[in-house]
Amino acid sequence: MVNEMAKISYPLVLINFKAYPQSSGKKGLELAKVAEKVSKETGVSIAVAPQLTDLALIASNVDIPVFSQHADAVDPGSKTGHVTLEAVRDAGAIGTMLNHSERRIRADEIDVIVKKAKNLGLLTVVCANTPEVTAAMAALGPDMVAIEPPELIGTGIPVSKAKPEVVTGAVELVKKVNPQVKVLCGAGITTGEDFEAALKLGTVGVLLASGIVKAKDWEKAILDLVKPLLK
Amino acid sequence: MVNEMAKISYPLVLINFKAYPQSSGKKGLELAKVAEKVSKETGVSIAVAPQLTDLALIASNVDIPVFSQHADAVDPGSKTGHVTLEAVRDAGAIGTMLNHSERRIRADEIDVIVKKAKNLGLLTVVCANTPEVTAAMAALGPDMVAIEPPELIGTGIPVSKAKPEVVTGAVELVKKVNPQVKVLCGAGITTGEDFEAALKLGTVGVLLASGIVKAKDWEKAILDLVKPLLK
Amino acid sequence: MVNEMAKISYPLVLINFKAYPQSSGKKGLELAKVAEKVSKETGVSIAVAPQLTDLALIASNVDIPVFSQHADAVDPGSKTGHVTLEAVRDAGAIGTMLNHSERRIRADEIDVIVKKAKNLGLLTVVCANTPEVTAAMAALGPDMVAIEPPELIGTGIPVSKAKPEVVTGAVELVKKVNPQVKVLCGAGITTGEDFEAALKLGTVGVLLASGIVKAKDWEKAILDLVKPLLK
Amino acid sequence: MVNEMAKISYPLVLINFKAYPQSSGKKGLELAKVAEKVSKETGVSIAVAPQLTDLALIASNVDIPVFSQHADAVDPGSKTGHVTLEAVRDAGAIGTMLNHSERRIRADEIDVIVKKAKNLGLLTVVCANTPEVTAAMAALGPDMVAIEPPELIGTGIPVSKAKPEVVTGAVELVKKVNPQVKVLCGAGITTGEDFEAALKLGTVGVLLASGIVKAKDWEKAILDLVKPLLK
Repeated sequence: MVNEMAKISYPLVLINFKAYPQSSGKKGLELAKVAEKVSKETGVSIAVAPQLTDLALIASNVDIPVFSQHADAVDPGSKTGHVTLEAVRDAGAIGTMLNHSERRIRADEIDVIVKKAKNLGLLTVVCANTPEVTAAMAALGPDMVAIEPPELIGTGIPVSKAKPEVVTGAVELVKKVNPQVKVLCGAGITTGEDFEAALKLGTVGVLLASGIVKAKDWEKAILDLVKPLLK
Repeated sequence: MVNEMAKISYPLVLINFKAYPQSSGKKGLELAKVAEKVSKETGVSIAVAPQLTDLALIASNVDIPVFSQHADAVDPGSKTGHVTLEAVRDAGAIGTMLNHSERRIRADEIDVIVKKAKNLGLLTVVCANTPEVTAAMAALGPDMVAIEPPELIGTGIPVSKAKPEVVTGAVELVKKVNPQVKVLCGAGITTGEDFEAALKLGTVGVLLASGIVKAKDWEKAILDLVKPLLK
Repeated sequence: MVNEMAKISYPLVLINFKAYPQSSGKKGLELAKVAEKVSKETGVSIAVAPQLTDLALIASNVDIPVFSQHADAVDPGSKTGHVTLEAVRDAGAIGTMLNHSERRIRADEIDVIVKKAKNLGLLTVVCANTPEVTAAMAALGPDMVAIEPPELIGTGIPVSKAKPEVVTGAVELVKKVNPQVKVLCGAGITTGEDFEAALKLGTVGVLLASGIVKAKDWEKAILDLVKPLLK
Repeated sequence: MVNEMAKISYPLVLINFKAYPQSSGKKGLELAKVAEKVSKETGVSIAVAPQLTDLALIASNVDIPVFSQHADAVDPGSKTGHVTLEAVRDAGAIGTMLNHSERRIRADEIDVIVKKAKNLGLLTVVCANTPEVTAAMAALGPDMVAIEPPELIGTGIPVSKAKPEVVTGAVELVKKVNPQVKVLCGAGITTGEDFEAALKLGTVGVLLASGIVKAKDWEKAILDLVKPLLK
C-alpha cells in the first residue's frame, strides 16, 4: 500500500539517485535517510528515486515519497527483467519517473503507463528535453513533466539560468495543452538559488541528481537547496 | 560483499521470479524464504532471481544465492533507470541472468557484461533459444548458459521431454566451443522428473519460473522438484 | 530536388506498401505506377510509401508524391543501416512517415526529425494509436498525424466505422493542441465508403495498406477507394 | 533473381556506403559504377553496400555484388519500415551485412536471419567488435564475419596495424568454432598496404567505408586499395 505519510506537496524536490556509485545499495539507503531527515526538519517535500535494485529496500525504510526511476509498459507476468507498475507499488513507491533522457521510452508506452498509473493510484513524472516534447508529454496527462535539456544534465549549470526560455517555453506550452500537469525543472540544479529561479519560472519544483548525490556532505547540500523555502 | 554462504553448487535450481504478481514485493521475499528453507533442509543448491525492484530487499534477507534477472552494459554514473553490475553486487546478489527471451540484449553487450562480471566476482547465466545461439553465448565465456526454447516457456511442457535434441544439441556445441561453460536447462520445467531428465541430457541444473512461482504450495512444489536428488 | 509535380493536395490517399511480398521490388514499382495512373486519371492526390529498399527506384520512376515508411533521427555520416532524411530527399521522396505502430520511435526522436524535415522541405506524417498520443504527436508540429488504432490495422474493419469516437477524439485534441496539423485516418480502411466516413469525421485523408496492396486488381481497388471524391 | 555475374570471389573488397552524404542517391549510384569499373578492369572482387533507400536502384544498375547494410529479423507482411531479406533479394542484392557497430542487432535475430538467408540463397556478413563476439557470431554460421574494433572505425588507423592481435585472435577463434566461416577485416582500412596486411593476418578481405567513400577521387582510391592484388 502507498504510505499515507508519503504524500507529496509542492514545491517538490525530487532527488534522482541515477546509477551513481555514491547512491548504490546501503549508501542509497543512507542518502534516502538523510533526505528524510531534512524533509522532516524543514517541512519541505523531498522525494527520492533510488536505483531500481534498491527500490523495495529503501521504500520500506523511509517515510518520504519514493519514486521508481523507470517503469516498463508491461503487465505483471512473463516479463523477466522488466519493471511493472505493480512491482513499483508493491515495493512501496508512490510513483515513477518515466522517459529520463538516459532511459527514453516511446510515447505510446508512456500513454499506457500513465493511464495505468492512474488506476493504480501511482504518480508519474515524465521527463522531456525540449518545450515541444514537454508539451507532447503533457498531452498524455501525467501528474508532472520535468523539462531537462540533456546538454545541461550533470553540468552544474542550472537550466533556470542558462536557458530560462526553455523552461518558460515548456511551462507555457504545458499550460495550453494540459493545464493540470505540473512542471518540474531539471538539469544543472544544485543550489537554493537555482531552486528559487526554477520556481520563479513557473515550475513547482526541481528534479536533480549529481548536485546532491555527489556532494561530500549530503545533509548540507540538501539543506542549502531548500533554504530559499524556509525564509 | 558476496555472501560466502551464498556460493552455488551443482546441480543447481534457479528460480526466476519474472514479473509475476505472485512474486512481487513481500510475496517475493516470502517465496525466497521458502526456497531458502528447502535448500537448507535438503542440501540442494537453490538460487532465486527476484524482480529487479526487490533485489536488495530479498538479497539482504536470505542466505541462498540471489541473481538479478537482468543487467545493463553500463558503468555506474549518469544512467537513470539502468541496472549496473555494481548495483547488483551492492544489492547483495552473486550474479545476474542475461538475455532472457523476455529481455534480450545484444552479443556485444553480453560480452561487456560477462568480462566485467569476472572482474567483480559475479556469476553470469546467459539464456539462449537455439543450440546455435547457445554456442554463440558460450563463446562469450559466461559461467552458465541456459537453453530455453521460447515456445515452451510457461507451458509446463518440459523441453527435456518435448525437444531433448535441442538440449543435447546445445550441450554438444557448448562443449566444442567452450567446455568450461555449464549448461542449464529451461522452459517448461516443473517436476522432479523434468529435472532428472534435464540432468541426464548433460545439463547441470534447471532454470524455471511459473512451475514454482504459480504453484499454490511453494514448499511442496520445490520439494517435488528436488526430490530426484535426494535418493 | 523534390519534384514540383509531386506536391500533395487534400483529400489525400497515402498507400503504405509495408513489407508485403506483393509490393516488393519490381512489384512495388508496378503498384506505384498503378497509383500514379489512377491519380492522373481522377485528379485525386495519391501518394505511396514504398519499401525502404525500393525508395529511390520508385521515386525516380513515378510522378506522384513518394514518402519513406520511416526515417531515423540521425544526421548523414557513420550511420550504417540507418535512413537519414537527407537520403530520403536524395532518393526523390517528398517526406516520410514516422512512428508507425509497426515501427515506433521515441517522441524526442520525432521532435528532431520533424524540425529537421522542415529545414529540408520534407513533409512528415506521424502515426499514433490513441487520441492522447495523437495530440502528443501534434504538439511536435508535424505536417500530418495519422490516427490508427493498432487493433484494427489489417483487419478490413474501418476505424471510421468501428471506433469513430477515436477518430473524432483525435481530431478534437489535435485542433486544440496544434490546429495547423492535419489528421489522416488509418486502420482497416479499404473502400470508398470508409474513405468518405473518414473525411466526415474531420480528417483530410486516409492512410491504408492491405486494403490496396493485397487487392487482386490494384487499379480497381484504388478506383473504388477514390470514387466518393469523383461525384 | 541473384545475378550470376554478381557472384563474389576472394579476396573480397566490401565498400560500405554508410549514411555518408557523399554516397547518397545519385552519388551512390555513381560510386557503385566506379567500383564496378575498377572491379572489371582489375578482376578484383569488389562489392558495395549502398544506403538502404538506394538498394534497388543501385543493384539494378551495376553488375557487381550488392549487399544491404542491414536486414531485420522479420518475414514479409505488416512490417512497416522494416527491411526483410525478401526485399533485399527482390532489390537485386546478393546478401546483407548484419550487426554493424552502428546498427547492432541481437544474436537471436542474427540466428534467424542467417538461417533464412541460406534458404533464400543470400549471403550474410556479420560484424563484430572483439575476438569473442566474432567467435560468437561465427557460431551462428554466417558466410562471413567482419572483425571491426569500433574505436578504429573511421580513423584511418588500420586495425591490421594498430591491433593485429585482435584480427589474429578473431581468426583463430573462428577457425575453432566454425572453420567454414570466412573472416573479413574492417576498421581504419584505406590503402593497399592495409589490405595486404589484413590478408596476411588470415582474413579473406576487407570491409571499409570512409577510406573510399570520402576520397576525392574514388577510382584512384579503389585502385590504390586493390593494387597489392595485381602484382
